[in-house]
Amino acid sequence: MEPGGDAARRGLGRAARALPPRLLLLLLPPLLLGRGLRGAAAASSSGAAAEDSSAMEELDTEQEAEESHRQDSVSLLTFILLLTLTILTIWLFKHRRVRFLHETGLAMIYGLIVGVILRYGTPATSGHNKSLSCTQEDRAFSTLLVNVSGKFFEYTLKGEISPGKLNSVEQNDMLRKVTFDPEVFFNILLPPIIFHAGYSLKKRHFFRNLGSILAYAFLGTAVSCFIIGNLMYGVVKLMKMVGQLSDKFYYTDCLFFGAIISATDPVTVLAIFNELHADVDLYALLFGESVLNDAVAIVLSSSIVAYQPAGLNTHAFDAAAFFKSVGIFLGIFSGSFTMGAVTGVVTALISFLYFLPLPGHDCADVTKFTKLHCFPLLETALFFLMSWSTFLLAEACGFTGVVAVLFCGITQAHYTYNNLSVESRSRTKQLFEVLHFLAENFIFSYMGLALFTFQKHVFSPIFIIGAFVAIFLGRAAHIYPLSFFLNLGRRHKIGWNFQHMMMFSGLRGAMAFALAIRDTASYARQMMFTTTLLIVFFTVWIVGGGTTPMLSWLNIRVGVEEPFEEDQNENHWQYFRVGVDPDQDPPPNNDSFQVLQGDGPDSAGGNRTKQESAWLFRLWYSFDHNYLKPILTHSGPPLTTTLPTWCGLLARCLTSPQVYDNQEPLREEDSDFILTEGDLTLTYGDSTVTANGSSGSHTASMSLEGSRKTKSSSEEVLERDLGMGDQKVSSRGTRLVFPLEDNA
Amino acid sequence: MEPGGDAARRGLGRAARALPPRLLLLLLPPLLLGRGLRGAAAASSSGAAAEDSSAMEELDTEQEAEESHRQDSVSLLTFILLLTLTILTIWLFKHRRVRFLHETGLAMIYGLIVGVILRYGTPATSGHNKSLSCTQEDRAFSTLLVNVSGKFFEYTLKGEISPGKLNSVEQNDMLRKVTFDPEVFFNILLPPIIFHAGYSLKKRHFFRNLGSILAYAFLGTAVSCFIIGNLMYGVVKLMKMVGQLSDKFYYTDCLFFGAIISATDPVTVLAIFNELHADVDLYALLFGESVLNDAVAIVLSSSIVAYQPAGLNTHAFDAAAFFKSVGIFLGIFSGSFTMGAVTGVVTALISFLYFLPLPGHDCADVTKFTKLHCFPLLETALFFLMSWSTFLLAEACGFTGVVAVLFCGITQAHYTYNNLSVESRSRTKQLFEVLHFLAENFIFSYMGLALFTFQKHVFSPIFIIGAFVAIFLGRAAHIYPLSFFLNLGRRHKIGWNFQHMMMFSGLRGAMAFALAIRDTASYARQMMFTTTLLIVFFTVWIVGGGTTPMLSWLNIRVGVEEPFEEDQNENHWQYFRVGVDPDQDPPPNNDSFQVLQGDGPDSAGGNRTKQESAWLFRLWYSFDHNYLKPILTHSGPPLTTTLPTWCGLLARCLTSPQVYDNQEPLREEDSDFILTEGDLTLTYGDSTVTANGSSGSHTASMSLEGSRKTKSSSEEVLERDLGMGDQKVSSRGTRLVFPLEDNA
Repeated sequence: MEPGGDAARRGLGRAARALPPRLLLLLLPPLLLGRGLRGAAAASSSGAAAEDSSAMEELDTEQEAEESHRQDSVSLLTFILLLTLTILTIWLFKHRRVRFLHETGLAMIYGLIVGVILRYGTPATSGHNKSLSCTQEDRAFSTLLVNVSGKFFEYTLKGEISPGKLNSVEQNDMLRKVTFDPEVFFNILLPPIIFHAGYSLKKRHFFRNLGSILAYAFLGTAVSCFIIGNLMYGVVKLMKMVGQLSDKFYYTDCLFFGAIISATDPVTVLAIFNELHADVDLYALLFGESVLNDAVAIVLSSSIVAYQPAGLNTHAFDAAAFFKSVGIFLGIFSGSFTMGAVTGVVTALISFLYFLPLPGHDCADVTKFTKLHCFPLLETALFFLMSWSTFLLAEACGFTGVVAVLFCGITQAHYTYNNLSVESRSRTKQLFEVLHFLAENFIFSYMGLALFTFQKHVFSPIFIIGAFVAIFLGRAAHIYPLSFFLNLGRRHKIGWNFQHMMMFSGLRGAMAFALAIRDTASYARQMMFTTTLLIVFFTVWIVGGGTTPMLSWLNIRVGVEEPFEEDQNENHWQYFRVGVDPDQDPPPNNDSFQVLQGDGPDSAGGNRTKQESAWLFRLWYSFDHNYLKPILTHSGPPLTTTLPTWCGLLARCLTSPQVYDNQEPLREEDSDFILTEGDLTLTYGDSTVTANGSSGSHTASMSLEGSRKTKSSSEEVLERDLGMGDQKVSSRGTRLVFPLEDNA
Repeated sequence: MEPGGDAARRGLGRAARALPPRLLLLLLPPLLLGRGLRGAAAASSSGAAAEDSSAMEELDTEQEAEESHRQDSVSLLTFILLLTLTILTIWLFKHRRVRFLHETGLAMIYGLIVGVILRYGTPATSGHNKSLSCTQEDRAFSTLLVNVSGKFFEYTLKGEISPGKLNSVEQNDMLRKVTFDPEVFFNILLPPIIFHAGYSLKKRHFFRNLGSILAYAFLGTAVSCFIIGNLMYGVVKLMKMVGQLSDKFYYTDCLFFGAIISATDPVTVLAIFNELHADVDLYALLFGESVLNDAVAIVLSSSIVAYQPAGLNTHAFDAAAFFKSVGIFLGIFSGSFTMGAVTGVVTALISFLYFLPLPGHDCADVTKFTKLHCFPLLETALFFLMSWSTFLLAEACGFTGVVAVLFCGITQAHYTYNNLSVESRSRTKQLFEVLHFLAENFIFSYMGLALFTFQKHVFSPIFIIGAFVAIFLGRAAHIYPLSFFLNLGRRHKIGWNFQHMMMFSGLRGAMAFALAIRDTASYARQMMFTTTLLIVFFTVWIVGGGTTPMLSWLNIRVGVEEPFEEDQNENHWQYFRVGVDPDQDPPPNNDSFQVLQGDGPDSAGGNRTKQESAWLFRLWYSFDHNYLKPILTHSGPPLTTTLPTWCGLLARCLTSPQVYDNQEPLREEDSDFILTEGDLTLTYGDSTVTANGSSGSHTASMSLEGSRKTKSSSEEVLERDLGMGDQKVSSRGTRLVFPLEDNA
């Protein structure tokens, strides 16, 4: 508060400096503007008039702007303080291995505390009423030119204010300052979270359970949305009967609530799974479901909103409008999916053409020719920019950026990742990890804060209780029946304990919050927002705290770190695993389960997962492995061997010379589709771990006999791979700590 | 452009979705708002009135908002495309070792091309005039409440529009879209650049030349500012005489121009130095000067602006106002400095208390207890948050955030860096490297774009030519005299070739641009902005292209990578050096030039740099080494040995147990103050490299005989260090490729 500094800033601030965007620093603050800064916009280009006689008013405006800027900085500092506190506390928790409270839960608690302080501790500074009325024509224009004694000022529309709130607009500066524009969550905080989820989805167990995951995510979310919507409609009827509901609440509103509350976010559960090395299949089911149902929920909710303006009598059922909504759902979803996948493929192509890492060599190892071979900084920057452009491209085309970013992340992990140098791989991972971490904890601490600082809460006990019951029933109504039907097709049944665990893990998080806060204009939406906030609080705390007891109560296997971790390859693994999920980055040497053609299907185990190795999936896999991988990455068989001979020239052009050069087996880090029965047997099977594993690992459960693949990989490679498979399996065997029988 | 998607979005967009902030994605776009989105603000909370009869207008507004959002996404995509192109081209350049064009110059060229396309290729879409006039009272309010047939809408002030531009407000949507709010540069793009500069300033050669660097940065910038200001005042007088100047242009304006154009940014020169391994002392002088004179220029310009409102007759000389300005300069500078340093120290304390890395151990190495010992993600996040909070804190207190961030970076590098785990060190470096890279290239490509898309250019040939002459003379007038005076005190003279090179390297970059674009309201400022832009263009291209010839013409030594790089330690070094500056991270083992007390000063060489080892500096160094380092980091001597005995209890509390545990010499990676004469002799000396080096390295040029340091480091450590010094020197000897005599 140095007076000299003030004076200088006021001077500099004359023209542009006093603008609200001043405080819009790195990453997120910008949208604070949306709500927070309405009082701040000083005469930005009035510098031209600096020599005019109206210097006094300008000084006033500048001082206001200066003051507002200071408050903005303070409010941002509040959030940084919150995040810092959270980080420091997590630290202690991790040191002491405290598991009953996850960092997100912690962030919420700190947010709550600061919210209470802001709410009741700061004086209501409704002193300066800067507003001014001016009655006008029939519609609101987005831009206003105001003539003030000869000078023209430009104003932009901020939004409508309900007549009742006219007096409370300037109610409490500090509370308004800490209230962000809802779009912050959608456009700034969600993309890194979702991209990170997609990028780290490269899990062998994810693809193994792909069918089930898709069923849970698509069918499950739809069922859940429908059931919750209908139940809530009943609750709303009840509220109207007892006179608790004063405003309108349509059936579509109920369905909308069903859609936003169906996006599960078991981040706390997965963190504990990760730490305890709980069952990988359960992990994959939960993680995959939550990632995909975020995308489903987002598109579902916009389809439901699109249903509304069908006719004049907008809230009756209209078959045409219904099918239009379904069409919109399919259109947006497939459009966003395509957009994300295409950008991912383009990035892969660029990286394929440009990045030429020596396989198996780290940049740090290549001393002499470093500058020739890899520039991790450039790779990382390009990767970041291309991922961001996916979001923008989708938004520019009218699709959903968040969904596009998810599929972009998955594609990047599948193709581009292979073309990056080792150095860049860890860099991109780390970059998105930090962004994800900060964004996620910011959202959760904001949630805590919002419970007290958000000024339009509508607490309706009946609705809240009804919602809790509805989400419980809604989840039960899709987990159990779906599991039943899936078990009909699955070789490895989803056991009762897994089903109960999935039921239990249906907590709500960032996506539900972002969808709910997006629109809090109407009474119904405010009620939904308040209810969503409470649901997030309780599910995060209760489920987060109850996961460890639940795991042991349900007899779900957990593993602990055993001495085998000390071997060389595990170190590499460990490196990536710090703070990330368990089998995200399998050690390069241990996991190269090559596609072994020649070795027939069903040869050893005979019991492969029929459900997952359906023909469509197998077709896609062979296409991906034989054509896409060789074109987009430096791995896979040379195209010259997979394409028919008449395509010889084309094939030679498209194939990377490195594919030929590499006599050693390629490090296919993402051959995650390929499942050895041994691995499966181990996870679900009985106690004869090593024996079963060694026999099972000879089985390539994904047979490629249908493809025209020639014998490009030699028998030695085959043998080596199998040996590695054995090693992997046996080392994995030591991880079983509770050798309990599955009820499946 | 899928119609279904549109419909859905329009529906969802009803309330909040149509808001302009939609497109404000990661990092920078937000402030696009400032200028770009004025037409976009749709009725944001009018969702409450969704069921009202005015559905048609709403649809209109929503469609406008939708359209605007799409355009925003496209304009951002333009920038991403530019950056992507730049990266891909740099790649090729690096592969072919092209040095005549730096990435920043390239970014500008691409920006220029896209600017031309946007300017002449897009149609002027001045179709929909959404504005509306409304005559009003005597002053412009920052908030406006507008009553539109019973509903109230809130408007915020955007800025004044000069009457002449009233019609051209909506001139070309696309051009406006790509014009960012000037505050973007100050608040979003500069902080990471400046922080990175501070964080990578941890150079041994920087501290060796600290005195000279401070002289160039403070005195030099002031002299340059004053001379350029006066010369430009002459130019302005001349323009008035020949009738080329129509508007006001005061003496303070000229001084202001002097201040903004005095910030040098030799990023292209340093990149080439880095690549060619040019003389490290010259590198340190240039880098240090440019980093610090950014800070000086920023504060100087605000002081000059603060000078203006002194009296009614604002532009005559006023001694009181002058001293007030000087006071403001000192106040802001020292305030920002303190703020940055304090936050840095606080971060160091927190990291000292929390992070307990095993010295010399990487997280990746510690397999079993990884989870107990270091959490790189948390460390990185905390580091990022604390650095950001420095910026916010300074802004909240009315200081200059950018300057605070610079000194925060320096402090973090000096203390916090030592407490981070090895993993976190590289993570933080990489994170800020990416941010820095993206921000810098964005600024430069924006500059290229702005030459054509900025709509208020004032090209004045006389002013531009005058400015080129003035900056040349201004730089000559401080480099040569200052070097003369510095050479009086320096043992190692700054040779003529060094002086010429420094003169030549005075190019202007991001900081000058950011300062110039901050205020383009008045005619004078617009002329300055255009001139600055041209100066940046030509200096970047000419100096960037001429550096390599200049180096050989001036006979400045460059080194190339020699076989010695292949030994183990150099690999580690190499790792960090990819894309970074040369001696940023010296190898831990080779550089542990410990403070060797006992070994008297002047013993072997006898000719140490008197200038740098002045008593004040020595005092600070010993204080830092004996007290601050042990308190804030895990290195340095235990406090129990440096503090007097009566402080024993306090000392034991404050000293890290690790200091005692470490029997091996501590890796003091930042003992950069300590200069061995051997090193100096080598760089400047004659051809008896190895002999001179081995005798010289026994000299600790920084004597600490004045401090109360006890003999904590054993003789063995001493011997080992000396041995290492020898090894270092001899390996360094091979790097001399042009063994030319210095003219010094």
